[in-house]
Amino acid sequence: MHDTAAIMRASEVKNASFIGKEVTIRGWVHRLRKQKENSFILLRDDRGGVIQCVLPTDKAAGLTIESSVQVTGIVSQDPRAPEGGFEIKGKELKIFNIAAEYPIGEYQSDELLLDKRHLALRTRKMIAMAKVRASVLHYGRRWFVENGWMEVTAPTIVKGAVEGGSTLFKLRYFDQDAYLSQSAQLYLEAMIFSLGPVWSLTPSFRAEKSRTVRHLAEFSHLEAEAPWVTLEDILKVEEQLVSYVIQNTIKERAEELEFLKRDVSGLKKVEPPFERVPYGRAIEILRSKGFQVTEDDGTKREIQFGDDLSIDSERELTKDADKPVFVVGYPIAVKPFYVKEDPEHPGIGLTADMLAPRGFGEITSGGQREDSIDSITSRMVKEGLKPEAYEWYLDLRRYGSVPHGGFGLGIERLVRWITNAEDIKDTVLFPRTMSRVEP
Amino acid sequence: MHDTAAIMRASEVKNASFIGKEVTIRGWVHRLRKQKENSFILLRDDRGGVIQCVLPTDKAAGLTIESSVQVTGIVSQDPRAPEGGFEIKGKELKIFNIAAEYPIGEYQSDELLLDKRHLALRTRKMIAMAKVRASVLHYGRRWFVENGWMEVTAPTIVKGAVEGGSTLFKLRYFDQDAYLSQSAQLYLEAMIFSLGPVWSLTPSFRAEKSRTVRHLAEFSHLEAEAPWVTLEDILKVEEQLVSYVIQNTIKERAEELEFLKRDVSGLKKVEPPFERVPYGRAIEILRSKGFQVTEDDGTKREIQFGDDLSIDSERELTKDADKPVFVVGYPIAVKPFYVKEDPEHPGIGLTADMLAPRGFGEITSGGQREDSIDSITSRMVKEGLKPEAYEWYLDLRRYGSVPHGGFGLGIERLVRWITNAEDIKDTVLFPRTMSRVEP
Ligand SMILES: [Mg+2]
Ligand SMILES: [Mg+2]
Repeated sequence: MHDTAAIMRASEVKNASFIGKEVTIRGWVHRLRKQKENSFILLRDDRGGVIQCVLPTDKAAGLTIESSVQVTGIVSQDPRAPEGGFEIKGKELKIFNIAAEYPIGEYQSDELLLDKRHLALRTRKMIAMAKVRASVLHYGRRWFVENGWMEVTAPTIVKGAVEGGSTLFKLRYFDQDAYLSQSAQLYLEAMIFSLGPVWSLTPSFRAEKSRTVRHLAEFSHLEAEAPWVTLEDILKVEEQLVSYVIQNTIKERAEELEFLKRDVSGLKKVEPPFERVPYGRAIEILRSKGFQVTEDDGTKREIQFGDDLSIDSERELTKDADKPVFVVGYPIAVKPFYVKEDPEHPGIGLTADMLAPRGFGEITSGGQREDSIDSITSRMVKEGLKPEAYEWYLDLRRYGSVPHGGFGLGIERLVRWITNAEDIKDTVLFPRTMSRVEP
Repeated sequence: MHDTAAIMRASEVKNASFIGKEVTIRGWVHRLRKQKENSFILLRDDRGGVIQCVLPTDKAAGLTIESSVQVTGIVSQDPRAPEGGFEIKGKELKIFNIAAEYPIGEYQSDELLLDKRHLALRTRKMIAMAKVRASVLHYGRRWFVENGWMEVTAPTIVKGAVEGGSTLFKLRYFDQDAYLSQSAQLYLEAMIFSLGPVWSLTPSFRAEKSRTVRHLAEFSHLEAEAPWVTLEDILKVEEQLVSYVIQNTIKERAEELEFLKRDVSGLKKVEPPFERVPYGRAIEILRSKGFQVTEDDGTKREIQFGDDLSIDSERELTKDADKPVFVVGYPIAVKPFYVKEDPEHPGIGLTADMLAPRGFGEITSGGQREDSIDSITSRMVKEGLKPEAYEWYLDLRRYGSVPHGGFGLGIERLVRWITNAEDIKDTVLFPRTMSRVEP
């Protein structure tokens, strides 16, 4: 294990106090340059750190890219050594495995890198992405723990739809049909009656037939629900959570974000409060800029009150922002049945989406849930859903219903914004999309 | 939200410093006794705490079990008051919702409680179980974070089997077939080459056609994998992890475990090291007790070297133990293809299962993985698997293979042992079994 004192990592070795000392490091041949006398190995340790190791070429003759090795040698400083000016003058080389000819070269198509994702994870870009992701998961959970919310686990295999039937994955569950969960929300709602403010972080699934840079068929969903909350209470939680995750992540992953060339000056400004833009105002802004929407038949027209916001309209609204923006009070007609109607503004939902700045789009969606049995039943009927299929969920309104609300946050969308990743596929280790379920 | 100073929870109110003071508490009517003059409400707050509220019966006339209410009144001490001798002499009652006639009474069949699981979560037993579970999840993750392991997320939708094809759930993934993951292990193995010691906590799925008190079709799987580890390294991690989770959980959930009547004196003794019993010795012990196994055709015979251990044999081996026991070195014939064969003991795997004491059975399984491309390919062929279906996994042995190992821990099995639950279904909020995918 790594705590055996003898074996070190690159980040430990690259330290002036080790100059002239003998160290042992283990890892993989990340880059290799063989000269007549000496060979230069850029060794990647098991946390993705790298350091140059110099070995006599006769010793290193058999080495190939990605061979696994252990090098013992003397640490020295050489300004020409890449990645920090330290190198190890190798005395002993132990070889674990000579890698076959490596199928990934320096310039590769994105498709090949996705086909060989199990190997592409060894690129330093993916290593940096993975570490940022780990921090986002960690601080996302930690905010809830520190603020006294209770963790729960909702099932992934379910019978009913949350977000609509068209994006459901169907599976054979013993002798019946079932589906993969689109959201834990309905289950979290059941838990607030005895566990209070609750949260979960589980995979959600959407069989979206869109090939975009912000959709995954499987994603990590951080969801929360609490009794006796207003929409404004929920927005306060969301802006605190997102700010906390970002500030801690850019501190913990400063090195990785620098490697990814992410300028974090904008992220540093992310702190509560986030601007609340009423949906009607958002439409006005878009109209004042002549924003067009495309109808199903291909014709274009100006955006109008009642339209949902597309990624293009979200980009327009946030292109100059540094902080996320809440669009508040969408028409209930464009939102799911469980969104509570604002009693003071009929037709408007007590709901908000958080849009990340600079066009990264929606990262959370949340609000108050309809708590009246009559209202929610008639909303279901209006949307063509069968209330009978939701009997257990309706029970939550029959037995001690209380005002309540919550939200869901897409981890990958948040990671995409933090890392400035062009494609959301890079925020997960093994992406699942319409065309990709392997490796 | 709960941080509005005005609203308190039962555990806060039950404090001598509040006697004579006015407080407001919110929750549900957990029990109800109406007398001529006064009505006695056992109010359950949103964290499952309870306190008696006394109200004039004319005010409380319409109340029913599980109605949601808010009571304002004066805290007083009364030794007759249940659950701690405190009560609230109610002055104001606000009703959120009068519950319909509650379908769960005091004595109900297990089946009805499972059918109404969304309501049965409000029983104090399930509340206690949920809180223990939350602590186990929390400390399970925290051990890895504190010890420098990196969190990763493996996909849940996959193409290949880890544990064998008979327990796979199949689903339609756009225009192809795919499966639900049985374990993240193969993916975790891919990640050790650049992220080092890694862990994940994701759902795993087994379409087990067994109706037992220790099988779930969907379970929470805490898995870990690391490069350059021996079997003994892995066992040390496992015993430290399990001891850490247990000691922290029994401290944090002392009240809940007491409510569940769990005597924790045995659990307090759980600390490293755990006994290592070689598989061969385990068989000898069972034979010395005349332990029988039942063949597929129903005939019985004495257990012998080469047999897998059943739950009955696991119970026999651990019935007097306070600490878990590792059974080490199973024959590779009863273990999956990826288990590494002990070079010094052909036929024996560098693998171990951790058996919980008192017959709670296997809670972890782990060991070294076969790292040679030739050995693992021939093992696959011997087990009737097609190596072509595992090309990406075999690449891990082609490009820089290193000795490595890991393990998986079933969260629900650990919770079952900690809580002494008879049925594993009680360790999850919405269990998934052969006959149950709802609610
Ligand atoms: Mg939207
Ligand atoms: Mg076993």
